[in-house]
Amino acid sequence: MLKGSTQLVAIVGTPIAQVKSPENFNAWFEREQQDLAMIAMDVRAPDLGHCIALMRGWNNLRGCVVTVPYKQAFAAQIDGLSARSAALRAVNVVRREPDGRLVGDMVDGFGFLNAARQHRFRAAGRQALVVGAGGVGGAIAHALCEAGIARLALMDTDAARQDSLAALLAQAFPAVELLRGCASLADFDLVVNATPVGMGGTGELPLPRELLDSLRSDALAADVVTSPPVTPFLELARARGCRIQTGAEMARAQLEFLGGFIGVMPPVDPAAVLAAELPAG
Amino acid sequence: MLKGSTQLVAIVGTPIAQVKSPENFNAWFEREQQDLAMIAMDVRAPDLGHCIALMRGWNNLRGCVVTVPYKQAFAAQIDGLSARSAALRAVNVVRREPDGRLVGDMVDGFGFLNAARQHRFRAAGRQALVVGAGGVGGAIAHALCEAGIARLALMDTDAARQDSLAALLAQAFPAVELLRGCASLADFDLVVNATPVGMGGTGELPLPRELLDSLRSDALAADVVTSPPVTPFLELARARGCRIQTGAEMARAQLEFLGGFIGVMPPVDPAAVLAAELPAG
Repeated sequence: MLKGSTQLVAIVGTPIAQVKSPENFNAWFEREQQDLAMIAMDVRAPDLGHCIALMRGWNNLRGCVVTVPYKQAFAAQIDGLSARSAALRAVNVVRREPDGRLVGDMVDGFGFLNAARQHRFRAAGRQALVVGAGGVGGAIAHALCEAGIARLALMDTDAARQDSLAALLAQAFPAVELLRGCASLADFDLVVNATPVGMGGTGELPLPRELLDSLRSDALAADVVTSPPVTPFLELARARGCRIQTGAEMARAQLEFLGGFIGVMPPVDPAAVLAAELPAG
Repeated sequence: MLKGSTQLVAIVGTPIAQVKSPENFNAWFEREQQDLAMIAMDVRAPDLGHCIALMRGWNNLRGCVVTVPYKQAFAAQIDGLSARSAALRAVNVVRREPDGRLVGDMVDGFGFLNAARQHRFRAAGRQALVVGAGGVGGAIAHALCEAGIARLALMDTDAARQDSLAALLAQAFPAVELLRGCASLADFDLVVNATPVGMGGTGELPLPRELLDSLRSDALAADVVTSPPVTPFLELARARGCRIQTGAEMARAQLEFLGGFIGVMPPVDPAAVLAAELPAG
């Protein structure tokens, strides 16, 4: 039960009704008997600047999770960024310091890696395709590179966005072989949909059907879309015999990184996630 | 449990941890199985303008309750005011219209009257003293005048504030005999503390002890302070045999006016409260 003394964490985006983070966070706060609550804030784009400015002066706000379409706008306006969120020019989590400064990080990629490890996928030495070079696609691609992927293909209908992410990753990770687009999925151990395609029961696929016919049955197929829980892409992959990873799994797996960064859950070190990915010794 | 789809009502002030409205509202929402929640927002004064601007663009915010020290600042910045809140230059409740416009009202006085009626106090023809001419004191004084009080004394350590409220009421209610200050409590059927004095267990009294010695044992003594539940002023009045009315009683009694105005509870007509105060026929 929310009280006058309750400290708040927000999740900010538009639309917002579909997000699952409030249920995940609030179940955790309740279980731990913390006087904390996550609220969902649906903010109109023209007023986002007021929202960010207010957060500096909102004394009982501990921080926020940032979702579509504001990951880039928050990164451009807050007061401090982690190295990876500065490189990606996007944040998905913001902590309010006691003096009101807002600092951000991008942990979508760590949630993704932790969820994928549950499906026996480890990045080191493998080959992957990430479809969608926006905020979450960039974060997943960046984390795969940090975790030692050997070869990474990027694909986005916005060519400029695809090329800009590829250039950024090429500079930061010279050891990774980067491809722009692909003609077949036959080489990939992992194929990720990081676009909104398939959301809301449209039945759409994020890749052409003929390309999907080359998806290997021993690959992991992953989606960031949370509704429906199993997207048309994941249904097709499952029918081919692939392991599948849902958007909800990724959302749950990054809970500890979001809460740890904001300071409302025990601290976690993203570097430990990467260490778990790499071969021992 | 808060979800992504939950519609929000805020209570805005600083400090905020002591307010009881979130518990009152949230218990009601839970009982009625509404996907609604009240959150408390502790906002720093320099950022209040951002808060108000954000509220216009906060799609899942239904409105807010306004508490100390922002009742006047909200009234000066929102987009529409009821006649009484325009006269008092203060609001304690704001509704967000579907187009984002913010409109306000001041219902502290109706909560007060409804609570006082539970203690067999009716304003018509009686004599009252209101100590404190700020937002809540002004609202209580205004409502007492609307309900037909015969004689009303105002008292505030800030003489300008006391005189300005007296002038405003004199113009709006020429039939009420208005006094500035008083030398004895012997005439008063009702004495209200509408200052923060006594809050937080300081043990302080809102009036000099020698004046309180003239409090009649058949008077109603009321306080707006909610913590401690029974203030030193109310303890003293109780010891003299007076009926007492706590700040929590007033807060509970105005719940329906706040929720009705915002549109998250059944609508109520403040005029009906006044009608109940006046003698029949």
